[in-house]
Amino acid sequence: MIERLCIIGVGLIGGSIGLALKSQGVCGHIIGCSRNEENLQRAVELGAIDTFNTSPAEAVRDCDAVVLAVPMGNMRTIFELIAPVISHDTVITDVGSAKMAVLEAAKTAFGQLPDGLVPGHPIAGNENSGVESAMADLFQGRRVILTPHGGSGAQATAMVTHLWEACGAEVTQMDAGLHDHILAATSHLPHLLAFSLVRELANSPHHDDIFRYAAGGLRDFTRIAESDPVMWRDICLSNKDAILPAIERYREELDRLQVAIETADADTMNTMFKEAHDARAHFRKLLDARERQNKS
Amino acid sequence: MIERLCIIGVGLIGGSIGLALKSQGVCGHIIGCSRNEENLQRAVELGAIDTFNTSPAEAVRDCDAVVLAVPMGNMRTIFELIAPVISHDTVITDVGSAKMAVLEAAKTAFGQLPDGLVPGHPIAGNENSGVESAMADLFQGRRVILTPHGGSGAQATAMVTHLWEACGAEVTQMDAGLHDHILAATSHLPHLLAFSLVRELANSPHHDDIFRYAAGGLRDFTRIAESDPVMWRDICLSNKDAILPAIERYREELDRLQVAIETADADTMNTMFKEAHDARAHFRKLLDARERQNKS
Repeated sequence: MIERLCIIGVGLIGGSIGLALKSQGVCGHIIGCSRNEENLQRAVELGAIDTFNTSPAEAVRDCDAVVLAVPMGNMRTIFELIAPVISHDTVITDVGSAKMAVLEAAKTAFGQLPDGLVPGHPIAGNENSGVESAMADLFQGRRVILTPHGGSGAQATAMVTHLWEACGAEVTQMDAGLHDHILAATSHLPHLLAFSLVRELANSPHHDDIFRYAAGGLRDFTRIAESDPVMWRDICLSNKDAILPAIERYREELDRLQVAIETADADTMNTMFKEAHDARAHFRKLLDARERQNKS
Repeated sequence: MIERLCIIGVGLIGGSIGLALKSQGVCGHIIGCSRNEENLQRAVELGAIDTFNTSPAEAVRDCDAVVLAVPMGNMRTIFELIAPVISHDTVITDVGSAKMAVLEAAKTAFGQLPDGLVPGHPIAGNENSGVESAMADLFQGRRVILTPHGGSGAQATAMVTHLWEACGAEVTQMDAGLHDHILAATSHLPHLLAFSLVRELANSPHHDDIFRYAAGGLRDFTRIAESDPVMWRDICLSNKDAILPAIERYREELDRLQVAIETADADTMNTMFKEAHDARAHFRKLLDARERQNKS
C-alpha cells in the first residue's frame, strides 16, 4: 500500500498509471501535477488522480513516492524543482526511455544519486498521447525495466516493483547502460528509420503516386512515424550515445546490401535475405509465445 | 469471356488468379503449368486450375491468353520456351514486380515486343507463398498496374484489364519506368530496410535481450522481412536501376538525421520528425479513404 503518491506529468503514461493503481486500490491518494490545470481537471474527472497541484515542489509534499512521467527533456528541471523539498527517504521513479540520462539529471539536481531513486521504463505506450488516451490496462502483460543504481535502497526498489506489478506489468532489472543500448536497437533505431523513410517518400517528386500505390506493408512499416516528434527529439538528445553506434552499425549493414545489389551479387543477397528471414521467424516465435503467456 | 487461359506458375498469385476467375465463371478452361507436378495436382484439387501440363510450350497451345506468375528470375526462360510456339495474337501478361526487366526479357526472347504483351503487376500478396495459401479474394479491392508498351494492342490491353477486373481488382495504366521507380520507393526500399534491420539486430551481441524486450512496433516494422528471400533477390536483380537511387536518397536522409543527433541539433530534429509525422498522417488519411471505398 502506498499512502500518498505523486504523479508528475499526467498524460498517456502518467494517466494510465493512475487509472491502474486506482482500479487495484493500492494507493490511498494520488496527487497529479503538470503545468496545464485544464488537463489536471480532466484527469480528476477520468479518475486517474484524486487531486492536483501545478507546483512540483508543493505536489510532492508528504508523498511516499513520486513518479516522473514527463518527457525526457523535462526530467532535470523537475528533479531540480523537487530536490530542495523532498525528504531523503521518498521513493522516486520515472518512465523515461533513456536511463543513463535520467541518472545524470538526478545526480546534477540532487548532488548525488538519492537512495530512494529507482529509475524505470515501461515498454508500453502507443501512437496516442494525452490523458484522454489513458487506459487502466495499458501495462497489462507488458515489461517494465527498472535500472536501480548502486545506492538504490532495497525498500525503494521493492516499492517501485510493487507499483508496476499492481499495474499488471512484468518487472525486470537491468543495468542502465545495457537498457539504453537495447532500447536504441529495438525501439529508437526503428523509429528513426521509419521517420527517415516517410520523409524520403514525402520528398519524392512522385510522392502522390507513391502514397496512392502504397500497400499495407508500408503502412505497418511507417505507423511508428506517427509518434510524437517532440518526444523523439528528446529521446535522440538523451540517448545519443547508444543511438549513434546503432545507426552506424545499421549503415554498415545497408552498405553491404547496396554493394551486393550494385554488383548483382546473387549469392550474397541470398545469404543476407535468408538470414534476415530466419531471424525474423525466430523473433516471431518469441513474440507469439509471449503473447500466449499474457493471454493465459 | 476467355475460352482457354494458361497460368504458368501456380503459387499464391497464380493460384489466386485461377480461383478468382473460376469463381466468376469468366474462363472456359484454365490450364496450369509449373515444374512441380505434385503442386499442380494440388491446384486442381483446390479448384484453381482445370488441367495441367509441366511443359510451358505444350501448356500454352491453343490458349487465348497466358499469365506468367513465376518469379522475376524465371521470366526470360519462360518467354524463350513459349516464343517459338505461341501465335502472334495470343495475349500475354505477367505479375512481376519490375516491369522494365519484363519488357527486356520479352524483347530478348521474342526478338521484338509482341503486340499481345501487356505486362502487369498486382499490388497484392502477403508473406505467404504456395498454392495452399491462394485465395479467390486476394485481389479484391487491390490495385493492378498495367504497363502496356508502345505496340501493345488495344484488344490485348482490354482483355488483360477484363481479367483483373473479374478478379475484383482496380486496374490502372502506367509507364513501365515510372512503375519501377514508384515500386522501388513504396515496396522494394521498405523491404530492404526491414531485412537490414532484422540482420543488424540478430547480429548484435545482445540479440537475445533485444528480441526479448522488443515491443509491438518492431514486430510491425519487421513483418515484411518474412517475405520469400529468393523473390527479393530476384526483385533486387531485376529492379536494380530504380532501387539503387532509392537507397542512395534514403542514405542521404539518414545522414542528415545522424548529423543532427551528433551535433544535438534540436531544431533540425524537430523539423525532420514533424515533417515525417505530418506526411505519415496525410498518408494514413489516403489509405483510410481507400479502405472505406473498398468496403462500400
